[in-house]
Amino acid sequence: MDRNLTMLMDYYELTMANGYFKKGFKDTKVVFDMFYRKNPDNGGFVIFAGLEQFINYLLNMKFEDSDIEYLRSRNMFDEEFLKYLKNFKFTGDVYSVKEGEVVYPNTPLVTIVAPVCEAQLIETMLLLTINHQSLIATKANRIVRAARGKQVMEFGARRAHGYDAATLGSRACFIGGVDSTATVSADIAFGVKAVGTMAHSWIQFFDNEYEAFKAYAEIYPTNCVLLIDTYNVLESGIKNAIKVAKEVLMPKGYRLSGVRIDSGDLAYLSKKVRKKLDEAGLTDCKIVVSNSIDEYLLESLFSQGAKIDSFGVGERMITSKSEPVFGGVYKLSAVQENDAFIPKIKISENVEKVTNPGYKKLYRVYDENDMAIFDFIGLYDEEVNKSTKLVYPLKDYKFYHIEDKWSIKELQVCYVKDGKLIKKMPSLKEIRKYSEEELSKTWNEEKRFENPHIHFVDLTEKLYRVKKELIAKENDKSCI
Amino acid sequence: MDRNLTMLMDYYELTMANGYFKKGFKDTKVVFDMFYRKNPDNGGFVIFAGLEQFINYLLNMKFEDSDIEYLRSRNMFDEEFLKYLKNFKFTGDVYSVKEGEVVYPNTPLVTIVAPVCEAQLIETMLLLTINHQSLIATKANRIVRAARGKQVMEFGARRAHGYDAATLGSRACFIGGVDSTATVSADIAFGVKAVGTMAHSWIQFFDNEYEAFKAYAEIYPTNCVLLIDTYNVLESGIKNAIKVAKEVLMPKGYRLSGVRIDSGDLAYLSKKVRKKLDEAGLTDCKIVVSNSIDEYLLESLFSQGAKIDSFGVGERMITSKSEPVFGGVYKLSAVQENDAFIPKIKISENVEKVTNPGYKKLYRVYDENDMAIFDFIGLYDEEVNKSTKLVYPLKDYKFYHIEDKWSIKELQVCYVKDGKLIKKMPSLKEIRKYSEEELSKTWNEEKRFENPHIHFVDLTEKLYRVKKELIAKENDKSCI
Repeated sequence: MDRNLTMLMDYYELTMANGYFKKGFKDTKVVFDMFYRKNPDNGGFVIFAGLEQFINYLLNMKFEDSDIEYLRSRNMFDEEFLKYLKNFKFTGDVYSVKEGEVVYPNTPLVTIVAPVCEAQLIETMLLLTINHQSLIATKANRIVRAARGKQVMEFGARRAHGYDAATLGSRACFIGGVDSTATVSADIAFGVKAVGTMAHSWIQFFDNEYEAFKAYAEIYPTNCVLLIDTYNVLESGIKNAIKVAKEVLMPKGYRLSGVRIDSGDLAYLSKKVRKKLDEAGLTDCKIVVSNSIDEYLLESLFSQGAKIDSFGVGERMITSKSEPVFGGVYKLSAVQENDAFIPKIKISENVEKVTNPGYKKLYRVYDENDMAIFDFIGLYDEEVNKSTKLVYPLKDYKFYHIEDKWSIKELQVCYVKDGKLIKKMPSLKEIRKYSEEELSKTWNEEKRFENPHIHFVDLTEKLYRVKKELIAKENDKSCI
Repeated sequence: MDRNLTMLMDYYELTMANGYFKKGFKDTKVVFDMFYRKNPDNGGFVIFAGLEQFINYLLNMKFEDSDIEYLRSRNMFDEEFLKYLKNFKFTGDVYSVKEGEVVYPNTPLVTIVAPVCEAQLIETMLLLTINHQSLIATKANRIVRAARGKQVMEFGARRAHGYDAATLGSRACFIGGVDSTATVSADIAFGVKAVGTMAHSWIQFFDNEYEAFKAYAEIYPTNCVLLIDTYNVLESGIKNAIKVAKEVLMPKGYRLSGVRIDSGDLAYLSKKVRKKLDEAGLTDCKIVVSNSIDEYLLESLFSQGAKIDSFGVGERMITSKSEPVFGGVYKLSAVQENDAFIPKIKISENVEKVTNPGYKKLYRVYDENDMAIFDFIGLYDEEVNKSTKLVYPLKDYKFYHIEDKWSIKELQVCYVKDGKLIKKMPSLKEIRKYSEEELSKTWNEEKRFENPHIHFVDLTEKLYRVKKELIAKENDKSCI
């Protein structure tokens, strides 16, 4: 992971940065927000992930001589700008919600306060990193919730979109609640425990299924999970598995750990296999299934009374197949003039793309039972307390208040100040634990897959006024 | 890209390899085929891609001391096996269709002939690499075909699944026919030309849209493409763009290169904008659009008479959004005994998952106009000529023959022999050119998006008999 990813950016970050530089704005501070507009899969929320990799990138940005040479060859960039890049170092501030946080549309997740060239150059990697891992963590969490406490293993490397998608995808799945992975590099890099036993090739390699099972049981007697669908689950696979349990494992004091089914009617086959295992006295033998599993198939399997102990989930989790795009964006929200941050807005042709202007802070309100009721956004220099007036933009004819028995939490934390890391990044296990805690404070109504409750995101009255005024001003301009 | 990716493998590759090793099969040669079962998006074919990265990985595999330490800590692996890994080198053969080849379901694309431990250990990376790039190259080619000769630019990095998905995805898009990319690292690594101008942040940063356009035009007068949808395309954006063209660019002898629209009704807006540009005498100014474009939206835009000169395509191409999984698999097809390769089959619970057994070769038949009519598969040691009898498995009551005026081409090439690269890998431009040539030999009926013609894949009579016999044998076994 120690590659130099500095040049993984959209070309326009460079043309814009060169432009700001040439126009004398190099040191003008700006504020950018990273946020998203829609929960994937029409879900109730997103699990925020990827911050550690983004911060690592940010603190280690370095334009190599060969990169400068490449840019020079494009004949578009000022020599002074290239000199600036040569000595580039991020000197700004990074505010972000914690990794593993439960988050909602149109709230500032990562806020960058930095000189405009710096803030612009980091856009692509910020979005790429957070979009990818948040997408996968969110999908994994849906699948884990649908598995009702049964073990979920991540089996997706072969269908991932490239090498990082396999390894970092596995990291994101762990944040989302997955127990283990098939991907060895994810264990080595992040400590997500790697597991696995055999593929169909093992069975095919031997003269027959029984010989293949026997060989495996002899080598791995304490962790023997046999793949029983290479030829015929009920007529061959389960029979040979039971035979090996009795003839090879039990005489030496071992038990058959499990059988895996990777094709066919998983509900029907799991029930039949469970019955045969139980009849053979192998009630402790687990049934593992894999093959195109996601949260919807899990709900169907449970509703059919499938007898399954753990799930190997591959392509539908590692690619978030039902919705493979997480549309996080990075928008300019303020520009510093003297000591003030002047709010900026983007109107756009699509109403849902109008941004929340200004340098902002994000808060969450919890009720007396510590359940998260709603979020709200205020201006960064606005004092917020229980008498702060709130507006829900879709119902702006009335104000909301925070009740006395409720509590307010600021959600963004300052990780980087003046280009320096000022907060210890949590371990992956700590991130996972934090996510589980926050999920326990999230209403079940937001967790369901069909028409989840929409979490309210209010604006403070002050921020709402700023937004309204900017929209009015831009409308005036448009009508010239 | 010079990372060591050796440990990017499923854990079961290691448990199996250790198993083969301990059972004394280390030197037993086997044959594995990589193939896929279904064209993405119900298309007519796939563009094969990713071979170069797979071969690079294969030739540079190296288990580091820390990897061996990790494996030792798992207490499952034999010390002799760990010693074997320490000195691991791939010594087998790699046969593959060329990168950029037009390929079809259930045909062997990559065939590995190697000692079983080696052939098993490379599975994950082979599938991961080929699946990812073939998926994206195929999707890009669909989008390029739908663009009817208009320029397509790849804009997807921020929505890609991790860093490799951005850079290697861009490579795959180029193979599929895309002209350029926004991703700078793809230009540096692969020479896919990086392009780009400005984001909304550039417009927002300045006091107003006109000032923003003016500043950009002053810095980049020869390549000035203005983003006109930050506030209002027709009331503000296009008016300011035309003003800048006349007041800033034309007095100095420059022309406005283009305008870009990134939101709203692209068909409607493009026609209105074209009219306004033409009325202002800017008939040479191009209209670029972006925003959730794919092959289906392109067909819709053309059918509405949209006036668009080039397309920036992001998330729907870089993630293959409509079908983000390419299901390539890697199956054991033969095991060497003495001098013969004994064919192996996988039956499975799903009929479509029954494999083609044996060590095989893949052929394509071209008609007298050099159009590709069908593919067929034979055994590796079978002499193939125009009197070879062919069977189409779904119509196995009759034989097919190759007509005299047709020609036969073997599709797989030996790239690696005894672990050594024996063929120069083509450049990316050569790959793209080869793909274009092969596409020109592909029927238009296979290129349409709705119900494309299904390309026939026959088996030689000899191979068909082997398959039938193995199925019968396995059925006999299952009925005991």
